[in-house]
Amino acid sequence: MSLTIGVDVGGTKVAAGVVDDQGRILEKLRRPTPSTNPELTAGVIAEVTNLLKAKYADVSAVGLGAAGFVDETRSVVLFAANLAWRDEPLKQKVEKLTGLPVVVENDANAMAWGEYRFGAGRGEEHVVCVTLGTGIGGGIIVDGRLYRGRHGIGAELGHVRVVPDGRRCGCGNRGCWEQYASGNALSHEARDLARVEPGRAARMMELSGGTVEITGLAVSQAAHEGDPAALECFDTVADWAGQGLADLTATLDPALFIIGGGLSAVADLFLDRMTKVYTESVTGRGHRGIAEIRIAELGADAGIVGAADLARQQ
Amino acid sequence: MSLTIGVDVGGTKVAAGVVDDQGRILEKLRRPTPSTNPELTAGVIAEVTNLLKAKYADVSAVGLGAAGFVDETRSVVLFAANLAWRDEPLKQKVEKLTGLPVVVENDANAMAWGEYRFGAGRGEEHVVCVTLGTGIGGGIIVDGRLYRGRHGIGAELGHVRVVPDGRRCGCGNRGCWEQYASGNALSHEARDLARVEPGRAARMMELSGGTVEITGLAVSQAAHEGDPAALECFDTVADWAGQGLADLTATLDPALFIIGGGLSAVADLFLDRMTKVYTESVTGRGHRGIAEIRIAELGADAGIVGAADLARQQ
Amino acid sequence: MSLTIGVDVGGTKVAAGVVDDQGRILEKLRRPTPSTNPELTAGVIAEVTNLLKAKYADVSAVGLGAAGFVDETRSVVLFAANLAWRDEPLKQKVEKLTGLPVVVENDANAMAWGEYRFGAGRGEEHVVCVTLGTGIGGGIIVDGRLYRGRHGIGAELGHVRVVPDGRRCGCGNRGCWEQYASGNALSHEARDLARVEPGRAARMMELSGGTVEITGLAVSQAAHEGDPAALECFDTVADWAGQGLADLTATLDPALFIIGGGLSAVADLFLDRMTKVYTESVTGRGHRGIAEIRIAELGADAGIVGAADLARQQ
Amino acid sequence: MSLTIGVDVGGTKVAAGVVDDQGRILEKLRRPTPSTNPELTAGVIAEVTNLLKAKYADVSAVGLGAAGFVDETRSVVLFAANLAWRDEPLKQKVEKLTGLPVVVENDANAMAWGEYRFGAGRGEEHVVCVTLGTGIGGGIIVDGRLYRGRHGIGAELGHVRVVPDGRRCGCGNRGCWEQYASGNALSHEARDLARVEPGRAARMMELSGGTVEITGLAVSQAAHEGDPAALECFDTVADWAGQGLADLTATLDPALFIIGGGLSAVADLFLDRMTKVYTESVTGRGHRGIAEIRIAELGADAGIVGAADLARQQ
Ligand SMILES: [Zn+2]
Ligand SMILES: [Zn+2]
Ligand SMILES: [Zn+2]
Ligand SMILES: [Zn+2]
Repeated sequence: MSLTIGVDVGGTKVAAGVVDDQGRILEKLRRPTPSTNPELTAGVIAEVTNLLKAKYADVSAVGLGAAGFVDETRSVVLFAANLAWRDEPLKQKVEKLTGLPVVVENDANAMAWGEYRFGAGRGEEHVVCVTLGTGIGGGIIVDGRLYRGRHGIGAELGHVRVVPDGRRCGCGNRGCWEQYASGNALSHEARDLARVEPGRAARMMELSGGTVEITGLAVSQAAHEGDPAALECFDTVADWAGQGLADLTATLDPALFIIGGGLSAVADLFLDRMTKVYTESVTGRGHRGIAEIRIAELGADAGIVGAADLARQQ
Repeated sequence: MSLTIGVDVGGTKVAAGVVDDQGRILEKLRRPTPSTNPELTAGVIAEVTNLLKAKYADVSAVGLGAAGFVDETRSVVLFAANLAWRDEPLKQKVEKLTGLPVVVENDANAMAWGEYRFGAGRGEEHVVCVTLGTGIGGGIIVDGRLYRGRHGIGAELGHVRVVPDGRRCGCGNRGCWEQYASGNALSHEARDLARVEPGRAARMMELSGGTVEITGLAVSQAAHEGDPAALECFDTVADWAGQGLADLTATLDPALFIIGGGLSAVADLFLDRMTKVYTESVTGRGHRGIAEIRIAELGADAGIVGAADLARQQ
Repeated sequence: MSLTIGVDVGGTKVAAGVVDDQGRILEKLRRPTPSTNPELTAGVIAEVTNLLKAKYADVSAVGLGAAGFVDETRSVVLFAANLAWRDEPLKQKVEKLTGLPVVVENDANAMAWGEYRFGAGRGEEHVVCVTLGTGIGGGIIVDGRLYRGRHGIGAELGHVRVVPDGRRCGCGNRGCWEQYASGNALSHEARDLARVEPGRAARMMELSGGTVEITGLAVSQAAHEGDPAALECFDTVADWAGQGLADLTATLDPALFIIGGGLSAVADLFLDRMTKVYTESVTGRGHRGIAEIRIAELGADAGIVGAADLARQQ
Repeated sequence: MSLTIGVDVGGTKVAAGVVDDQGRILEKLRRPTPSTNPELTAGVIAEVTNLLKAKYADVSAVGLGAAGFVDETRSVVLFAANLAWRDEPLKQKVEKLTGLPVVVENDANAMAWGEYRFGAGRGEEHVVCVTLGTGIGGGIIVDGRLYRGRHGIGAELGHVRVVPDGRRCGCGNRGCWEQYASGNALSHEARDLARVEPGRAARMMELSGGTVEITGLAVSQAAHEGDPAALECFDTVADWAGQGLADLTATLDPALFIIGGGLSAVADLFLDRMTKVYTESVTGRGHRGIAEIRIAELGADAGIVGAADLARQQ
């Protein structure tokens, strides 16, 4: 049986797993990311890989899902907002440290591939995966292949502008979708509410330790308790999310949207409304087929499973 | 030598041509579109096809580029804004009337394919073609194949929302890109200007027969004369066009944008500014490659050439 | 019995009347405005004044309501968008030509004063008059006196910005209230609709001679017939009008709004909705009194009556 | 010599002073506001008043400047956002507890009156005072009299809508001016920046104890040090402030704007830019006089001085 290792490299942790050809994870390891030092980060990736390789002799390749722009040769991380990578030759470094062939991929692309192959996307050939986490990541499957674009930087869906002169975004632009429809957008809504109507936001503030710095978790918990202000925050985010899916449909006309990321764990709080807004906003509605919307199935493992499978397919 | 016929079916005219495998048009025919009657429209398409077939014995297939939504089997026009088609089995009708195999394709897709194969897109594998005409059409080439989406309705780029609660669009939504960056958008700008500052818009009004219903042609001519108000209208459209290309880059990361449609004939009036805005707006700029922007080369023939070639490849 | 003459000087006509101290018009005269020539315009004003004076010996003064900025001494028209006046010493010229004392006032101020004294505003001391004509004019009564501001140019209510980067305005700015809530705004809405959904706008186009240059009259007539698209245009204008009244209430807290101008003749088509939006938008609603909204009573005569009464009070 | 007492009643403190007829404060007292209990608040006001009255036998009246809506009889606080007052008969209570005649006024009105009588507004008759504090308060002087509106709630300038569907406001509406041009708006800008570009906001975060909850003080200090991000936040607020003054000029055409409130202490950081934007945005600029802009002179004492003087004039 052929095995590969998938590694999900985020700003705070490195998570690795040995994965078989059915997408099953046999064993997982996790380490904090030494995010300010590229050399140490490559070292940690190699360390967990070598530990797993020592235990599973069949391991034949490594797939790395990295939070950043990855070049079109799938070798170099060009830029990462939350790590110190700038033109980092990650494939070369990790191959040298592990002796295994390495494929580097954007983390949201790896997640999308994992869901497409073994999760919510099985059986579809035109899939757009939207991960609603702190920001918004994206992955596009066209005719059963991962769409990477000319320079390897396709599907940066969170940075499509949806509001001219809108909210600032970490990418340096204003009005990006992820400022309106992500987990951060959810707490942004809640904090804006709390600053001007602290009475209405009382429960969310209480759940956030008494400050106006309301967390996404606090909004979710309050919403589950039925707090009207928290539900209103979710409604606003759902509206922006649904409109964004409609815009993606105008461009990509997929068969399926998969909604992943941290917010997908509380899909009960926004899925219905998002789907309704989507359905009512697609251009040409009534004269055309539209996409199905499903929640991701692999949870936090999607990146590991996807990266491992991409390494196998190399 | 193998020949195919390409037919471009628009709201006002049907243009057909015999095309060889190098994309050369051997002969062209043109008829007005009987746009309110689907039966007559199919009849006109068959008529020009049969005339050409009678003269060129080698013709082996017909490609139709139609202004509307085409289903994923490339047979049925689901809906057309400017023609009377609703679930029109165009392939079947024209095959019956001509005895030739028929492929139906969206007209902007056909144009994109023509440019990709024989025009500005030769040699590139990730191309997005944007036709700036009365509205905005789009065609996407991925890995050397025409991207059609799950239901055949991909690349409706003109109907991505760029302004919440923005200008009305013919698709029933508000704020669609084609309301800000097309030929119609150009005259919209000019008319808005003329209504409130007739003095500044005097030359454009003069060129439009003395009315505030300023045409795109009048704006172009005035701009070529150096009229400041006309140049201002072009600048506004260029800004929206460049921003839209930046947004498409976030999603699709193409190697190349091809700008076609009526506005491409006056590219000297907006290309530089559009390219500048594009370059300054792409997310991640400075850390990544961006797309080249070229003007279409085949002009009004792109649709015929592209449709004919798609029929050959079938 | 003391009589005065009021003259309403607009861009297309000069209308004069002899008015008694009860605001009754004894006789009226009307002439076209020679709008491109200040000298001729002063001449026409003097001509109608002298004709009336010859007939009514008791006339003691003249009030002129002029469409433009009038200086704080009520003597000079500083600027007029639709006439050729620039720093025009109108008081001096007309006094010389008629031998009567003259007071010059902004036309919307004169109308407001007419309504306050003899029309819809009788008995109130804090009145804001909003004239919804081609643009929006305003007049403010504070403690029973006409509010003129330091330079005589107060109550230019139509040029308060309500949309950042919004529609162009004839004043050179963007986003002014009169671009959203006037008679011109009404036809603007209708024309935008007609351009993208000609089918829905068919009745309004028919009533406008078959063009998309739909007139405000056509929208009104279609709306009275129940045409849904026309009613939608009125709803949009009503929403902007109501919000604007709410904003004026935050600043001025009047007892009464008087709605005049051409649109007030079809108040049945927007008054209820405008009032509802106003009531629901006033800051502090629920904890405070708000203004009453009434339709103007003097119609097109308000300017004559108001100007005449201002001349009497001098 | 006649003396009166002015009391400034805010959400956190009660500040009282004995004031002579030249606007000089002879002695001041300060207490924390028991803001959740109307009875105790009236008690504290009476306590400081009685202490001062015991020492200054000449005291003849009391003026209260209260942060809330005050009714047109200047007796009752209808509503206060930061205090527990709802239809609070403050005049009656304090008169009973002190034996002195009492006048109640909105706090921003009292400040405006103080500046008009003894501060930056001396000698002008058409003054608009804008206090840029946590929110925006306003006071209007017309013909040398305080403008109160029909219900006593005029000059709530902070709650004029400047952005449709804009930021939430504590008043329950969206897009109010005070969400864009106040001290809170300044920290709002800084926090939005810090969330997406923490690197650029590093100095402001450091000055705020290492959190993204950047205070207005931290922005000011960083700006004085030349921090580009802090200066950018001030520029944004200056632009909104200048545009708002231009809108007020369209309505009120004052001779003078007085800028007070906490932000006025750092006027060097925004006055030039605000004035430039104002000058370039006034409707009709070039054909009219515009207002002068001055910084308030009485600082935090303006409310005490103004309230005391209003009590004297009663
Ligand atoms: Zn972004
Ligand atoms: Zn559209
Ligand atoms: Zn204007
Ligand atoms: Zn507000």
